[in-house]
Amino acid sequence: MQVWFTEDQVPGLRISCQVTKVLHQEKTPFQRLAMLETGVFGRMLTLDDIIQTTERDEFVYHEMIAHVPLSAHPNPRRVLIIGGGDGGTMREVLRHPGVSECHLVEIDERVVAISRQYLPSLASAMDDPRGKVIIADGIKHVKDYRDYYDLVIVDSTDPIGPAVGLFSVEFYSDVFRALKEDGLCVAQTESPFYNTDLVPAIFGRIRASFPITRLYLGVVPTYPGGLWSFTAGSKKYDPSVPVRPAPDGLRYYSPDVHRAAFVLPPYVQQVISPPGPRPVVGP
Amino acid sequence: MQVWFTEDQVPGLRISCQVTKVLHQEKTPFQRLAMLETGVFGRMLTLDDIIQTTERDEFVYHEMIAHVPLSAHPNPRRVLIIGGGDGGTMREVLRHPGVSECHLVEIDERVVAISRQYLPSLASAMDDPRGKVIIADGIKHVKDYRDYYDLVIVDSTDPIGPAVGLFSVEFYSDVFRALKEDGLCVAQTESPFYNTDLVPAIFGRIRASFPITRLYLGVVPTYPGGLWSFTAGSKKYDPSVPVRPAPDGLRYYSPDVHRAAFVLPPYVQQVISPPGPRPVVGP
Repeated sequence: MQVWFTEDQVPGLRISCQVTKVLHQEKTPFQRLAMLETGVFGRMLTLDDIIQTTERDEFVYHEMIAHVPLSAHPNPRRVLIIGGGDGGTMREVLRHPGVSECHLVEIDERVVAISRQYLPSLASAMDDPRGKVIIADGIKHVKDYRDYYDLVIVDSTDPIGPAVGLFSVEFYSDVFRALKEDGLCVAQTESPFYNTDLVPAIFGRIRASFPITRLYLGVVPTYPGGLWSFTAGSKKYDPSVPVRPAPDGLRYYSPDVHRAAFVLPPYVQQVISPPGPRPVVGP
Repeated sequence: MQVWFTEDQVPGLRISCQVTKVLHQEKTPFQRLAMLETGVFGRMLTLDDIIQTTERDEFVYHEMIAHVPLSAHPNPRRVLIIGGGDGGTMREVLRHPGVSECHLVEIDERVVAISRQYLPSLASAMDDPRGKVIIADGIKHVKDYRDYYDLVIVDSTDPIGPAVGLFSVEFYSDVFRALKEDGLCVAQTESPFYNTDLVPAIFGRIRASFPITRLYLGVVPTYPGGLWSFTAGSKKYDPSVPVRPAPDGLRYYSPDVHRAAFVLPPYVQQVISPPGPRPVVGP
């Protein structure tokens, strides 16, 4: 018998991956969660039937969402991760010895529990004494902080279900206030090839709060089309310039990759800055 | 009724695309050929059930295989394309007004005929008076030329079927002789994420003939994992440095993208230069 997991990436396009074992599946209060064993990617976490992370290619996403903003800041000490319940982003954040405190605010405690059980290479970072896992709504969490964090990382699912509010103008306005005067934030902002409506919308919402807003790219093989975007909003520092050395042992990130990730093909540049009048940005 | 085309990208991994119309299918003397109409990608050419090119994302592959080597050469005049029967690479080559002669040597005349019929935005370049389509085996063609071409582009299928010989040491030795003393070549060299045996093997075979050998990357959404590699072999010029301006109207290539494409993530660098003794390169 063959068992295949299939994700509808966009209407009319599917990716299918052979599953050697269904390790776990449940319906949490927030979403459908599954942990699959696959031959191609090792263990794979899916939420609402969408691939979130796999053992084989998670390094790309987690290194790029963490080390780009961390390396653009001269001395990041307090970091907030919103989402990221698998622990992979926290693992990368804590590679920086100067980070003294890393809050991870995940709305779904089952993502944390199942990742701890099945993805120890990611989740064991959550045991670090500098890390603190908070099961709460990140949207509310940021409202309670002022001038506190050096870096906020929005490691969210796609903008459906519980993550919708993480793509709003109000949320980024709250993130701005939770950051110190020289802080910055970064969010995963979907595919610039397929999500040509969403990418400029999120970019515009971050730009509405931050004086410096830049898009950068990484290639995550299990995400639709491979090419993936991240958007950085910064109060002071240029996110495209690494000012500190990279930690040892990375597989995707390097200072040269950092700079190159901000070089956008003309078609991607056009997605975020279409010719003609600047669009009105809604909530 | 729904009709889906499915490609087995690697064992245990499939991509599926909904087909609105099967425009053409046949078995040629060399391979199974199909032209499909899809909602996501427009028209799609498949050979032996592998996606070769689609109207929506072909610009990435064709711009990157053509403009990188053309822009690294100060004055390319004679260009040879091996394969590339859809015409997309020739279209990009002929954007450079200094190119006086572009030979396209395609082994399967049916690819040319069907592309002319269904992919005019690519294939109409083959009507340019500077272009010449030659139905022949590229492996034999290069043996007949000495010190003739400024640039050879190997726009081949995967190394199965008729393309196997295009991945051999002997072939690249013949390409070297067909090039002028300052010529260069470039080949599509598969996925550095999935084809971790093949990429270093081809890289090593090109390096066996050329004093300067460099890998570069582009992201083609319909290819496995998105991330795609090209390998340039050069007699004199550094392939990573654009020395001439880009033609107008490009969507993926720019001189900045050119330079950034040679910045390899550490895991890709390791694929082509593993630690330890340099491997012996076989035929």
